[in-house]
Amino acid sequence: MIIIMERNASDIQIQKVIDFLKNNDFEIRFNQGQVHTVIDAIGDKTTVTPGRISAFDGVKEVKVIREPFRLASRDRKPDDTVIEFSNGVKIGGGNKPVSMVGPCSIEDDYEGLLKVASAAKEAGCEFLRGGAFKPRTSPYDFQGYGEKALKFMRKAADETGLLTVSEVMDASDLDMMCDYIDVLQIGARNVQNFKLLHAVGKCNKPVILKRGLASTIREFLLAAEHIMYNGNPNVILCERGIRSFDSAFTRNVMDIASIPVIKKYSHLPVIVDPSHGTGQRYLIEPMAKAGLIVGADGIMIEVHHDPENALSDGKQSLPIPMFKDVMTRINRLNENIHYEKNCLSANIG
Amino acid sequence: MIIIMERNASDIQIQKVIDFLKNNDFEIRFNQGQVHTVIDAIGDKTTVTPGRISAFDGVKEVKVIREPFRLASRDRKPDDTVIEFSNGVKIGGGNKPVSMVGPCSIEDDYEGLLKVASAAKEAGCEFLRGGAFKPRTSPYDFQGYGEKALKFMRKAADETGLLTVSEVMDASDLDMMCDYIDVLQIGARNVQNFKLLHAVGKCNKPVILKRGLASTIREFLLAAEHIMYNGNPNVILCERGIRSFDSAFTRNVMDIASIPVIKKYSHLPVIVDPSHGTGQRYLIEPMAKAGLIVGADGIMIEVHHDPENALSDGKQSLPIPMFKDVMTRINRLNENIHYEKNCLSANIG
Amino acid sequence: MIIIMERNASDIQIQKVIDFLKNNDFEIRFNQGQVHTVIDAIGDKTTVTPGRISAFDGVKEVKVIREPFRLASRDRKPDDTVIEFSNGVKIGGGNKPVSMVGPCSIEDDYEGLLKVASAAKEAGCEFLRGGAFKPRTSPYDFQGYGEKALKFMRKAADETGLLTVSEVMDASDLDMMCDYIDVLQIGARNVQNFKLLHAVGKCNKPVILKRGLASTIREFLLAAEHIMYNGNPNVILCERGIRSFDSAFTRNVMDIASIPVIKKYSHLPVIVDPSHGTGQRYLIEPMAKAGLIVGADGIMIEVHHDPENALSDGKQSLPIPMFKDVMTRINRLNENIHYEKNCLSANIG
Amino acid sequence: MIIIMERNASDIQIQKVIDFLKNNDFEIRFNQGQVHTVIDAIGDKTTVTPGRISAFDGVKEVKVIREPFRLASRDRKPDDTVIEFSNGVKIGGGNKPVSMVGPCSIEDDYEGLLKVASAAKEAGCEFLRGGAFKPRTSPYDFQGYGEKALKFMRKAADETGLLTVSEVMDASDLDMMCDYIDVLQIGARNVQNFKLLHAVGKCNKPVILKRGLASTIREFLLAAEHIMYNGNPNVILCERGIRSFDSAFTRNVMDIASIPVIKKYSHLPVIVDPSHGTGQRYLIEPMAKAGLIVGADGIMIEVHHDPENALSDGKQSLPIPMFKDVMTRINRLNENIHYEKNCLSANIG
Repeated sequence: MIIIMERNASDIQIQKVIDFLKNNDFEIRFNQGQVHTVIDAIGDKTTVTPGRISAFDGVKEVKVIREPFRLASRDRKPDDTVIEFSNGVKIGGGNKPVSMVGPCSIEDDYEGLLKVASAAKEAGCEFLRGGAFKPRTSPYDFQGYGEKALKFMRKAADETGLLTVSEVMDASDLDMMCDYIDVLQIGARNVQNFKLLHAVGKCNKPVILKRGLASTIREFLLAAEHIMYNGNPNVILCERGIRSFDSAFTRNVMDIASIPVIKKYSHLPVIVDPSHGTGQRYLIEPMAKAGLIVGADGIMIEVHHDPENALSDGKQSLPIPMFKDVMTRINRLNENIHYEKNCLSANIG
Repeated sequence: MIIIMERNASDIQIQKVIDFLKNNDFEIRFNQGQVHTVIDAIGDKTTVTPGRISAFDGVKEVKVIREPFRLASRDRKPDDTVIEFSNGVKIGGGNKPVSMVGPCSIEDDYEGLLKVASAAKEAGCEFLRGGAFKPRTSPYDFQGYGEKALKFMRKAADETGLLTVSEVMDASDLDMMCDYIDVLQIGARNVQNFKLLHAVGKCNKPVILKRGLASTIREFLLAAEHIMYNGNPNVILCERGIRSFDSAFTRNVMDIASIPVIKKYSHLPVIVDPSHGTGQRYLIEPMAKAGLIVGADGIMIEVHHDPENALSDGKQSLPIPMFKDVMTRINRLNENIHYEKNCLSANIG
Repeated sequence: MIIIMERNASDIQIQKVIDFLKNNDFEIRFNQGQVHTVIDAIGDKTTVTPGRISAFDGVKEVKVIREPFRLASRDRKPDDTVIEFSNGVKIGGGNKPVSMVGPCSIEDDYEGLLKVASAAKEAGCEFLRGGAFKPRTSPYDFQGYGEKALKFMRKAADETGLLTVSEVMDASDLDMMCDYIDVLQIGARNVQNFKLLHAVGKCNKPVILKRGLASTIREFLLAAEHIMYNGNPNVILCERGIRSFDSAFTRNVMDIASIPVIKKYSHLPVIVDPSHGTGQRYLIEPMAKAGLIVGADGIMIEVHHDPENALSDGKQSLPIPMFKDVMTRINRLNENIHYEKNCLSANIG
Repeated sequence: MIIIMERNASDIQIQKVIDFLKNNDFEIRFNQGQVHTVIDAIGDKTTVTPGRISAFDGVKEVKVIREPFRLASRDRKPDDTVIEFSNGVKIGGGNKPVSMVGPCSIEDDYEGLLKVASAAKEAGCEFLRGGAFKPRTSPYDFQGYGEKALKFMRKAADETGLLTVSEVMDASDLDMMCDYIDVLQIGARNVQNFKLLHAVGKCNKPVILKRGLASTIREFLLAAEHIMYNGNPNVILCERGIRSFDSAFTRNVMDIASIPVIKKYSHLPVIVDPSHGTGQRYLIEPMAKAGLIVGADGIMIEVHHDPENALSDGKQSLPIPMFKDVMTRINRLNENIHYEKNCLSANIG
């Protein structure tokens, strides 16, 4: 931790900071610059957080050197985390990217859902996704069918041989949900709902954590840390767009570069959600490809058997025929990426 | 609701949208421009949301004319909401702005807390604020003392004649908290934690709702709508800074203009929190004043009896002597604002 | 143009707006909703801009239906603009994506520059890029070698068979620059320097226009419109990252989705600059690929023969050996994209 | 300057950085942490910029301790800059805040302009402002009347006893403009048009520099530094809103806190422009007051004798009668602020 003192910090102020750090077993070096005194302190930041130091009079800024996430950090665990399911599907670690597809909300139409699930399976996808509890900006929008939706989902997944993903919004639903769901999802709006993060941290199901609209990459990894710290190492990060100043053509701005950044600093798998990331049907394919080519471990896209009658997010859902075409091209891309990796290994080897 | 069709939308696409709207009892007018067809539809948006229309092929954009919040809207309720407490304190409606002060976290030091409460009372403040459950970006930071903190708070408030404010992070804590707390607070990170909004909507305590780091004003008012729709009309909105591209000197950017904007579109009281809004002690006074002069109904500021040893947010807390000086000037400003209002009334009258 | 009146707009206010529009030969339809009156006006927005209407009392919002750019719009010109150079190189229209490479600043070392140019030519690149005039945030940073740099560039390009690209910062330099440069570049900071846009609009050289840090896509296309309106149809748009709330790991956020968005709404070619877009060497390759796979017509990347001694932007430059490897993989990707397109055409045909 | 090395930086990489710094006469201390090596270097950053160091392999981050602006810095010049005009008007240094008022664009209507100027003088304002050259996002919008507008402005100002302010867009207009104008203005879009900054830096007229839509405070002060470094010490900074994710109710977000921040770090005067900052007539008064109460040295507001027929920005202009009322209250506020300052001095003295 580096402490930069204000230009006019007094010797007494500087000494107070140094004494406090020494009393907390920090090792200190300091440097009297022309203008600012800089204190470099090495020690345990679980007892003395940067925020505490910054409250001392005369402190201009406290700069932490080491990334604040630990369990999520590649420093601690250099090898990729790979999440394996009972049917052999794997996420992460250079395995074939997975595809999670399905309607935004599970609706009261089992046959429709089954059509999507069948198309998904046929196209080589591994997961059926869909919402049972919907976080909605307005209380007047459809809020989801709850457990009934989960039953439909499980049934359609079992019938077609898929795994299931659905969003949890409340810790009290977790036990019930775990009966139906293979992967829990934390939505973007709950990325700092710490009570919920702690609750899924105590579950034995993998968790997809969506980046918040205003989450920095560091905060995003710290949210994962909350889950891991509570005992669950199987976190899958999902880039789904951040808020920017321009929402005229796309709902959010997808931070595609965050994928290789996270891969560098963390061992956790990362997937990409171009449906929510853009809010536009015609951008799903290009942005899924953009995510995959920079190293995403999977994609999550919305598919509906009848988007014009979808109860939510129809605009950003693919109809089934278009979905089939898109998956043909995405599967071809995944093969090319795999070939490219082999070339790389051959070059290195 | 206005539906703008794509440039190349076919007649069939246009007709499908019109038929759907007519079948849902919308009244339709449309206008074939040189380039785009525009459909103007009047009807009930609780059954047909804009999102459903935007899923139709050929639709470029759906523009809602009426603001989507209803209970929170000044259209529906032109008079200011005034929240009155048993001791006569009132928030909103042009009453004297209230002051809510106290430490970020309630710590294991009752005497320290009492010092703050006594100074607050003496300076004319109405509320003691403090955290018992702390939302922390990192799992390694201090998470709050829980119920013990609430007991301290209630005791210090009763001893000095103040009301209490504290943040609720989990619906399961609500019953317990209501024993100690006069005003519940929803933190910025939970502004779209809809389960929690619904839970406090069923409480009979007033709720301070903090604006999320990435909440638009419209989303902020819709979050209030979630609380009100569940039965609780006593929502106090709190501007506490939004995330911007520049956090070198202030943690967030305070959107001071949001206060008069909200006043125009909603009847709810609005307060301002310059401690979290800026993260800098020296900015608390000017930014509190900025909020008050544009019409805020109150301020929330962090005060600590010993900021250098605060367990959280010491950097943005006022020490007691500085706090007393600040309140002297803020009280004087409130008198001037009151005088100005009287001049205005006199001019108008 | 749709005019939405305030909830409480008076009949007189509404009539005033209607009369004004009618007097300016607009065709009017209007719709009295429950709350808001909506006026739909069809006419010539070059004489009556939305801003003028919004100044009328009682107007809440003016919504323009048609995109405000015209010459840049695909509505007006459905076919892709293709820019062809005397040596046969083409940009846009589905031609093989071009590569523009070179140092951030041209330095006082011709041999170094020639090394970069030779490597570029060998790797199949078409353009040598480099700065002669550098826009620098601080006046204390290196500002470029001016005409001397351009002479070096021209010589190295001629020796290797490349075309040249360099940034123009001042209209008074244009004549001189045109002696050396094949493509002029307008930097992100000058995207709304209208005097400069007008000046390059009167040149007969193609212009690369970089997106501003805070440019919306609409403003970006309107900046292109300024150039085209002044007579120069050969504008190449360049996505190079926008400013976001997170700059801890990447300098900017690359808005990769803007590429297919612009392709949908405009016929102009689009290229991508991952060096400035991310500011990180290790992100150049993945983000160049992300741009290409969503349809970019070219890439611009920084290459330096000795990045550790570069006078600017060494951090985001590729050293020559790494550059060669990257180009091998990028060339392979371009072939795959081409193959994919052929499959698409075959499927459609 | 503090250099933080990557976790896995090799000893050779560390040594290369140290050698380079030593060769450039930097004094070095370094600290081998558990994870990262930190190098603290004291020396002249005009020869070795942080960017050069960051290009070395193994460098994670370079942190500059001292603010990069110098001439604009309060470190160098603790006393407020006060700009004095020949008629005795002063800006900065705790003098009575000035008011700069007038239409967005000067139009072809001298009588209208004179009405505004007379009302301004009567209300105690010091400056007539208005645009002769208009930076317009669209080439189809009105671009200003040029020199004719400046003649009108000078005449109306002379007739009423005001000083004049107008925006310069091109260095080649400067000589001509200086015949008519007392204060030059650099618009937000030109805040990093360095050629223009250098040109006004060579003028002997004070310069109002508007903050760019995406300027950080640091970049804003560095833009002022460009002017000062070229010889002109009389820079007035103007906060006029930054771009945020929410533009539904206000065009920009006014960063009111930037005013006391700049006051802390710089000696330059700061004014506030609520017309451009919000784009809404009803927000001009509250946001002008917010700026003044946090310490702004002046306000700039748009006033038009007939806003509904203004050629630009009518929506954000005050009509004359409303302007008079607003100025009455703003003058009263300025007196109160002055009284408050005296109380402060009395308390301290």
